[in-house]
Amino acid sequence: MSEFQNLTKDPELLSKNFADFSFSILTIKQHISIAILIHSVRGKTMLRNCQRIFLRIYSPKSLIHSHYSNMSSALVILPSGAEEIEFVGTVDLLRRAGITVTVGGLDGKDPVKCSRDVLIVPDVDLKDVAKSQFDAIVLPGGLGAAKSMSESSLTGEILKNQEKEGKLIAAICASPAMVFKAHEIGQNKKITCYPSFKDDLGSKYTFVDEKVVQDGQLITSQGPSTVFDFALKVIEHLCGKDKSDTVAKQILYK
Amino acid sequence: MSEFQNLTKDPELLSKNFADFSFSILTIKQHISIAILIHSVRGKTMLRNCQRIFLRIYSPKSLIHSHYSNMSSALVILPSGAEEIEFVGTVDLLRRAGITVTVGGLDGKDPVKCSRDVLIVPDVDLKDVAKSQFDAIVLPGGLGAAKSMSESSLTGEILKNQEKEGKLIAAICASPAMVFKAHEIGQNKKITCYPSFKDDLGSKYTFVDEKVVQDGQLITSQGPSTVFDFALKVIEHLCGKDKSDTVAKQILYK
Repeated sequence: MSEFQNLTKDPELLSKNFADFSFSILTIKQHISIAILIHSVRGKTMLRNCQRIFLRIYSPKSLIHSHYSNMSSALVILPSGAEEIEFVGTVDLLRRAGITVTVGGLDGKDPVKCSRDVLIVPDVDLKDVAKSQFDAIVLPGGLGAAKSMSESSLTGEILKNQEKEGKLIAAICASPAMVFKAHEIGQNKKITCYPSFKDDLGSKYTFVDEKVVQDGQLITSQGPSTVFDFALKVIEHLCGKDKSDTVAKQILYK
Repeated sequence: MSEFQNLTKDPELLSKNFADFSFSILTIKQHISIAILIHSVRGKTMLRNCQRIFLRIYSPKSLIHSHYSNMSSALVILPSGAEEIEFVGTVDLLRRAGITVTVGGLDGKDPVKCSRDVLIVPDVDLKDVAKSQFDAIVLPGGLGAAKSMSESSLTGEILKNQEKEGKLIAAICASPAMVFKAHEIGQNKKITCYPSFKDDLGSKYTFVDEKVVQDGQLITSQGPSTVFDFALKVIEHLCGKDKSDTVAKQILYK
């Protein structure tokens, strides 16, 4: 089986290569010139076929997708004891959507031992990106991880800045209950979390027993098996419903 | 919130600690002596209460679970380009079930770059465990990973030995189609795979369009979002239905 045949069977790889070709190698000015050129074509059949293909690439829908996928970024914090399905599920799906994901190790750049002993290497030390801007900050769950993030003043600082900027904060499992509460994030909002933590939320949060809950700039979710709903909701918020549907289809979800 | 309170909220941690206490620190002979002692107790209320608790620990159901969880082992092969959700989802759930999981790096012990750029460190070099016995061999998907495993004579050797021994082989996504076919594993069996690969299976396999398919010693599954069904079926085969139900409940699945 040839490489090309295999490539065409993986819609994600194909769309990634296509997006690279059509939106990344040219400047905005070059794109505008091509668009004007396409609209002015009055040639023979072959030229008109080319025009049709390019009009599709430059359709408002494609341009919106391109705009979304080129602009969105997310920081996923990786503490020791993170629930590896919640961590990897989110990073994987966000990257499939074209979001630039940075994995920041809470304790530096060394490999992190997750809750079921999977060793994952962060992209960067969290300290080195603490002042950077991201469209979303994502917190995986895992009891040990949620505890570390609750006690980390750096995590608190990052979350408070993100909240002040009105940008997205997403958390799953124990993290909405433990980390949000510790750093007073999203008070008076509707949130969800791993159900056995709901009584710890106190009076400043309204618990909603659903797989994923969005209230303004907060997206929260319940546990390992709800990670797809969680990540797809983040993608929908950052990149639109069409993109989240495309990713859901790739992973055979729903 | 105290550590103990948090511990009681994580059923997996609690059952792990309980299992450690009741089944791991004593030898088989010591267990038998305790069982005989318990049955011979004819004492006061406190002693009879102790007897009741120990009879529960030594019930046939508990002993079957203990037998399963202490004996099962799995080797998960980790090649470059592995689909990280399929890899991590399986390792995580199998470890939750008490199965001893070894992650063998196809290209050694260095960190492995998965299909969406997550870097994962294997437990061992696959070469170092190629002659060891495992109750299950598990292959994650990912196009690059499936290709590498198809071309790896070491993978072929491990799979052929496992098949000859009549023990479990489990594969997901592109791997059932590409790796099984390349190494002539499970011929004439019913299998499933990522649906776009079904036409490549040829006449020696029967494709079944379900999330997870078991035919004897083969368990196969379709893609990232079917990883929970896949791992739970492996757990059911190795540890019984009660254990797979317990793990499903922990991760809030179904």
